[in-house]
Amino acid sequence: MLPNTLCKELSSIVGREHILTSPEDLVAYSYDGTSVEHRPDAVVSPLDVEQISRVMQICNREAIPVTPRGMGSGLAGAAVPMSGGISLCLTRMNRVLNLDAENMMAHVQAGVVTADLQAQVEARGLFYPPDPSSIKHSTIGGNVACNAGGPRCLKYGVTGDYVMGLTVVLADGRILQTGGKAIKNVTTYDLKNLFVGSEGTLGIVTEVLLKLIPLPKFARTAMAVYPMLEGASATVNNVLRAGVLPATMELMDHTTIGTIEEYLRLGLPTDAAAILIIEVDGGDEDTVTKEIETIGRVCRESGASEVRVAKTEQERNDLWRGRRSVSPSLARRRPNKLGEDISVPRAAIPEAIRRIKAVGDKYNLPISVFGHAGDGNLHPNILYDKRDPAEVRRVEQASRDIFGIAVELGGTLSGEHGVGVLKLPYLGMAESPIEIELMQAIKRVLDPKGILNPGKKFPCSC
Amino acid sequence: MLPNTLCKELSSIVGREHILTSPEDLVAYSYDGTSVEHRPDAVVSPLDVEQISRVMQICNREAIPVTPRGMGSGLAGAAVPMSGGISLCLTRMNRVLNLDAENMMAHVQAGVVTADLQAQVEARGLFYPPDPSSIKHSTIGGNVACNAGGPRCLKYGVTGDYVMGLTVVLADGRILQTGGKAIKNVTTYDLKNLFVGSEGTLGIVTEVLLKLIPLPKFARTAMAVYPMLEGASATVNNVLRAGVLPATMELMDHTTIGTIEEYLRLGLPTDAAAILIIEVDGGDEDTVTKEIETIGRVCRESGASEVRVAKTEQERNDLWRGRRSVSPSLARRRPNKLGEDISVPRAAIPEAIRRIKAVGDKYNLPISVFGHAGDGNLHPNILYDKRDPAEVRRVEQASRDIFGIAVELGGTLSGEHGVGVLKLPYLGMAESPIEIELMQAIKRVLDPKGILNPGKKFPCSC
Repeated sequence: MLPNTLCKELSSIVGREHILTSPEDLVAYSYDGTSVEHRPDAVVSPLDVEQISRVMQICNREAIPVTPRGMGSGLAGAAVPMSGGISLCLTRMNRVLNLDAENMMAHVQAGVVTADLQAQVEARGLFYPPDPSSIKHSTIGGNVACNAGGPRCLKYGVTGDYVMGLTVVLADGRILQTGGKAIKNVTTYDLKNLFVGSEGTLGIVTEVLLKLIPLPKFARTAMAVYPMLEGASATVNNVLRAGVLPATMELMDHTTIGTIEEYLRLGLPTDAAAILIIEVDGGDEDTVTKEIETIGRVCRESGASEVRVAKTEQERNDLWRGRRSVSPSLARRRPNKLGEDISVPRAAIPEAIRRIKAVGDKYNLPISVFGHAGDGNLHPNILYDKRDPAEVRRVEQASRDIFGIAVELGGTLSGEHGVGVLKLPYLGMAESPIEIELMQAIKRVLDPKGILNPGKKFPCSC
Repeated sequence: MLPNTLCKELSSIVGREHILTSPEDLVAYSYDGTSVEHRPDAVVSPLDVEQISRVMQICNREAIPVTPRGMGSGLAGAAVPMSGGISLCLTRMNRVLNLDAENMMAHVQAGVVTADLQAQVEARGLFYPPDPSSIKHSTIGGNVACNAGGPRCLKYGVTGDYVMGLTVVLADGRILQTGGKAIKNVTTYDLKNLFVGSEGTLGIVTEVLLKLIPLPKFARTAMAVYPMLEGASATVNNVLRAGVLPATMELMDHTTIGTIEEYLRLGLPTDAAAILIIEVDGGDEDTVTKEIETIGRVCRESGASEVRVAKTEQERNDLWRGRRSVSPSLARRRPNKLGEDISVPRAAIPEAIRRIKAVGDKYNLPISVFGHAGDGNLHPNILYDKRDPAEVRRVEQASRDIFGIAVELGGTLSGEHGVGVLKLPYLGMAESPIEIELMQAIKRVLDPKGILNPGKKFPCSC
């Protein structure tokens, strides 16, 4: 619990009603999208950069841990205040401050929900491409903290590719502004990208200047069915080689297809090894049509037994419905799931999936694999029941084995969810002691007292 | 001069013939693409990462300054050994170590010449897009050190966008490997991009893993002529809004056009305020043709008085010949030129050019402006004679005024050349004390003795 004098001091900055300390409130801020839980001592919801700066001055003076938080949709436990202290909730800072159509940039507060930003931007004929699955219940600040991705990364890149500038409150309350509207800038070290993906351990990202692009006017979608995994994997390169860069190439494996079909009865091919959902988009209808035709041909040449191209918007929605229903479908099959987020070289996808299946067999656990085939970013979801302690132990072992597979194949632990606390025990499998030491040293520069989201991203050096 | 015992120790690592100490050799390594000069005490040319690691262990032990160097084509003085010590020349390390067509990546040594890499990659139907003007006489290591750009950045991005992984020898000789073939990776802080653009001040980049893309099979080029600057600027956004993303949108102003025409007699419109050279490329011929037609229409609607679309490869080369001849043309007009590299928000281009012209009038100096309109990255070139001290002083004042214009318009000092020593006196105009302090602090973490390219990029904190 925070001493009363401190609560009063914080109240004088953000207002009494924006500090929560009752047990029921603290519980509400003790978890994120994972099963990790720890209560903060207080929840503080500031209104602007200035208030955050003053809050941080106090927390730095008193060495109080601060865990920044958006909507709490994270999948690695990064927003869970593991050391207590303050949960700094940025959801009141949810405004688009400026939309500069001429330079195609949006200046937003960190607490804006990504889908809300997209809607505002699209109303002006512009486009903010990153589309994490949490898009309707995650914030830009959280997306920046995790360098969030999504299905559209193959063509459009990840969150960090759209960050032109940041306002960051440092651990001691100083306000750093870095980057700006100049598209090319080599005047400083790349401080901006140091904060992107740092999971709130280096500073509080409070405002973000985002690059926008013209809204693509047309999209076409196809589903390709593969009797063999290799065909799905080969399709990715063959499509790119044919000169087409699809917006998405989403893969679902045999287990995933079966699980969705059991739930929704969409008529999916339950005997297939994998399906790909491929979407192209662009500003010219004829080009987009031609591209989806090329894709159909390449899919067949690469081993697809069937290609369905959506002819209407309704058919397109039907194709996406299955992909969007993966999570609820899996939830019906077993009470709990551990969703991993490994990233492997694109060409290693079939081998990765085969080995993950073997892990499922070894530990007698159903594992569904789906993800972003174009990027080699796979989400193996281990289905289990957390009331069974033996099963929980097997899940932990399977999880470690899956990380081992990713690293052995030249990949890494996380493509878009981050390390948080969940992947911390495995970090040494993917990263060298030098890398971990450099992260710790950079952390000490920016947060000498270690108050910013302590115990996350890498092992503490203290 | 280095003590004999040290020369012997270094010889035992790289071989006697790969250490140069004669005055004539030292002069050859005392400059880059600028007029900045300073001799090293010795030039050391290692063969591989291991040798560099051993050289750095010695330099760290003895606190000898080390300035890494590729082909010395830099335009900010970053490769000039201002503090003496060792010029570490990486041009022997010029091999493509691996070309992975399936994952579309190339693993190269830092000393490979960018054009050589491109040729090898293109022979396999793949493409490495970054194309700095120095492409035939600059190395990948130098490109990484400066985060080099080029005309194709609008569509394809800068060098850093293609860096998937780095091998870096740290100041103390330890070897850091960061990144890899996983396209998405949020497991660590973005250490990779900390080294990209750091101008050799944080570590010696020795090997680079580069992303490749499919080689575009078709390209079409147009030249649009504008009686008013605003038309050229408006064209950029209007083309993007029309759903076309050109590979290049190169701008040349009135002075530049006149200078080229005087030299080459290409029939360029010397009365125009500006011309744009716009190129589209892609994997489908019909699409590319359609795009260049759209561009022609949009240019006219945006205020172009004339649009010439190249119908043959010969006509395309003719259009590019003017752009490629900017530097030699300028060299004919006055003995010396100072080429700046400001970056402004795209919409600010006309205002930037107008103000730069006023600076030229104020100091009675011809200033030619050309550059990458799609990115807002302009190269104002001040033409002068360095034998005239009064003129040199006016050039310095004009240069400061131009940086002031860039910053006032929301831009910055350098889009792709870097800070080196030439822009050091002006850094405070663009970057806040906090940013400079953070850079200094990160430098101290990675290079506690300050031996790596001292006196570059930002003011020393020692």
